[in-house]
Amino acid sequence: MPIDTAERDARIIMSRVAEPGDVDACRLVHEHSATALVDRLRRGRLGVSKLADWVERIGSTNAGALRDQAAAVGARYVCPGDDDWPQQLDDLARLDLCGADRRGGAPFGLWARGSLPGAALRGRSVAIVGSRSATAYGEHVAGDLAMECAERGYVVVSGGAYGIDAAAHRGSLAANKATVAVLAGGIDRLYPAGNTGLLHQIIAGGLVLAEAAPGCAPSKSRFLVRNRLIAALSEGTVVVEAALRSGSLNTARWARDLNRWVMGVPGPVTSRLSAGVHELLRQPEVSLVTDAGEVVEQLAPVGEALAPAKSGPTSSWDALDARSQRLLDAVPVSRPASLTSIARVAGLQCDDVAGRLQSLCADGLVMGDETGWRLA
Amino acid sequence: MPIDTAERDARIIMSRVAEPGDVDACRLVHEHSATALVDRLRRGRLGVSKLADWVERIGSTNAGALRDQAAAVGARYVCPGDDDWPQQLDDLARLDLCGADRRGGAPFGLWARGSLPGAALRGRSVAIVGSRSATAYGEHVAGDLAMECAERGYVVVSGGAYGIDAAAHRGSLAANKATVAVLAGGIDRLYPAGNTGLLHQIIAGGLVLAEAAPGCAPSKSRFLVRNRLIAALSEGTVVVEAALRSGSLNTARWARDLNRWVMGVPGPVTSRLSAGVHELLRQPEVSLVTDAGEVVEQLAPVGEALAPAKSGPTSSWDALDARSQRLLDAVPVSRPASLTSIARVAGLQCDDVAGRLQSLCADGLVMGDETGWRLA
Repeated sequence: MPIDTAERDARIIMSRVAEPGDVDACRLVHEHSATALVDRLRRGRLGVSKLADWVERIGSTNAGALRDQAAAVGARYVCPGDDDWPQQLDDLARLDLCGADRRGGAPFGLWARGSLPGAALRGRSVAIVGSRSATAYGEHVAGDLAMECAERGYVVVSGGAYGIDAAAHRGSLAANKATVAVLAGGIDRLYPAGNTGLLHQIIAGGLVLAEAAPGCAPSKSRFLVRNRLIAALSEGTVVVEAALRSGSLNTARWARDLNRWVMGVPGPVTSRLSAGVHELLRQPEVSLVTDAGEVVEQLAPVGEALAPAKSGPTSSWDALDARSQRLLDAVPVSRPASLTSIARVAGLQCDDVAGRLQSLCADGLVMGDETGWRLA
Repeated sequence: MPIDTAERDARIIMSRVAEPGDVDACRLVHEHSATALVDRLRRGRLGVSKLADWVERIGSTNAGALRDQAAAVGARYVCPGDDDWPQQLDDLARLDLCGADRRGGAPFGLWARGSLPGAALRGRSVAIVGSRSATAYGEHVAGDLAMECAERGYVVVSGGAYGIDAAAHRGSLAANKATVAVLAGGIDRLYPAGNTGLLHQIIAGGLVLAEAAPGCAPSKSRFLVRNRLIAALSEGTVVVEAALRSGSLNTARWARDLNRWVMGVPGPVTSRLSAGVHELLRQPEVSLVTDAGEVVEQLAPVGEALAPAKSGPTSSWDALDARSQRLLDAVPVSRPASLTSIARVAGLQCDDVAGRLQSLCADGLVMGDETGWRLA
């Protein structure tokens, strides 16, 4: 059941007043209501120190103004219970977040821009993330991976950033499939500026989401907390290129904490931009993937999308049994040898060798005449 | 206790009569004796079909002649019980080998060329193997890895082939350390011809080993069975570059079957020559390694050689607590802002912000005057 207008407006206010993902704000809204919380803040009945932070912003915050600011760019506010709410985000409520940095609660609403129907967003999805300063190799791989995952029916989710994120979105768009970008700042601030065109393409057929209120800047700490939404929206996260301490490793950690699949695409060990992925791949629960087939195999229900076993070219030698292999190894390349000589070199009995040579001859592998046998 | 001369001569004969690693030959020699087996073959009391194969070669085989052939190149025959016998090879006797291709028994002797003392060969050791048609990347990585493993006291074992094998041997030699090459053919046939110089360098300070008798050609099937010796000699096997179906994956399988560590060095997923390694790395028991520190960490007794955790450059931002990070994110780059304005942007209480700004100022991260605060 959708939440009512008063509570929706209170949540819009809270999306501006509290930092995105603030655990206390998320819990208070979910357990009580944004209406009660905003009311308490407005009355100045604070009690706990945390609420005092929020008071700094509440005076200047107006739900109607924020809604208008969003509407100006064609954005709306969606809440849990709405048709187009991605229910998988509610898994974030299960995380046990402690420590000094209490960020990462289940969002109580999101700003959305685009036309992707809610049902599509609740279906199969994969996050493809990585370094902003990607290499040509990384962008190539991310693009191919995204395109093929999209073609196999997976919605590609990423962060709209330069490098791997952009390559992933573009790969999905190249397959004419909807893709989802989650921003760290406000929905009206398409960031980074150089990706404005790309983000408009994403909006045209897919979705751009933001947890922070319109007008909010994409700050460093908001990127880290935004990453949890990318991880939570997706059944699994693939990291394509990441230096040590890259933000995309943070997305991978969220995915792991949420019991989502974590995958990594390896690269040269000499590349600084693969070092973070390799560090990730050394963790036992992280899978190495080299193509979309392997990604989908990991994500799909057991047995549904087994990737074909990879195999190199097989030779006629491979198809022989061990004795015939030994025999073939002993047949000279150019100068014919007698059956007895070949048998001795191969270390096989003459009777057996005679029969096998006939059979290898029939297969076109050896040829024989009165001077002896040699390879065909 | 070393075995006696008669038995040693009989084993030398069997090294020519049976194919290297023939399971039946290995078991019959170990369980009975080579003397009894040669005697039976010479008398023509065959009984089983397998012995009939061996009869093809026994007539022309003479222990003294083989010993002379080996001595001509400075090679000797070593057997289990000898001081310089690598006891770890006896682990091969524990393998349960069945199926059509019964190859891979524990060797009853080896031809050896070089000066590496036996004790050194029974110490710490690592196999570094890979594709013959390696890329510059693979050879670079294999050489570095071998050099650093050698410097950390590990004997590098490989197959003396072109590509990764040669790079591994060269890396070890560059560290002035002994390295071991295991040949697929006879000890007097340094193969491949293009590596003759390298193999002579290996012999000078290390060891070249061969299971097949002097004069034997390095055939395809002998390469596969030779691989088990590389795996068995080493505490672990590292595959650097390998196409799908590469012979070095066969070495990795022997290592796994022997309960040795199996490691792989990743590369670009676009490289055919890393596809085999990546397939290997998708197996749960195989570890991804990117440098010698990680190889040694895997091989050394638990807790003895922990590789330092890899970390990227840390910034002053990383060292701050979450609230100060948020605050720093809210301080303008160039145009100074007031404390109240910064507090509102950061969503933090004014009192707290005042104290934190002073502290960030003391750390040299922000600067303030009567016009307000900005980043330093």
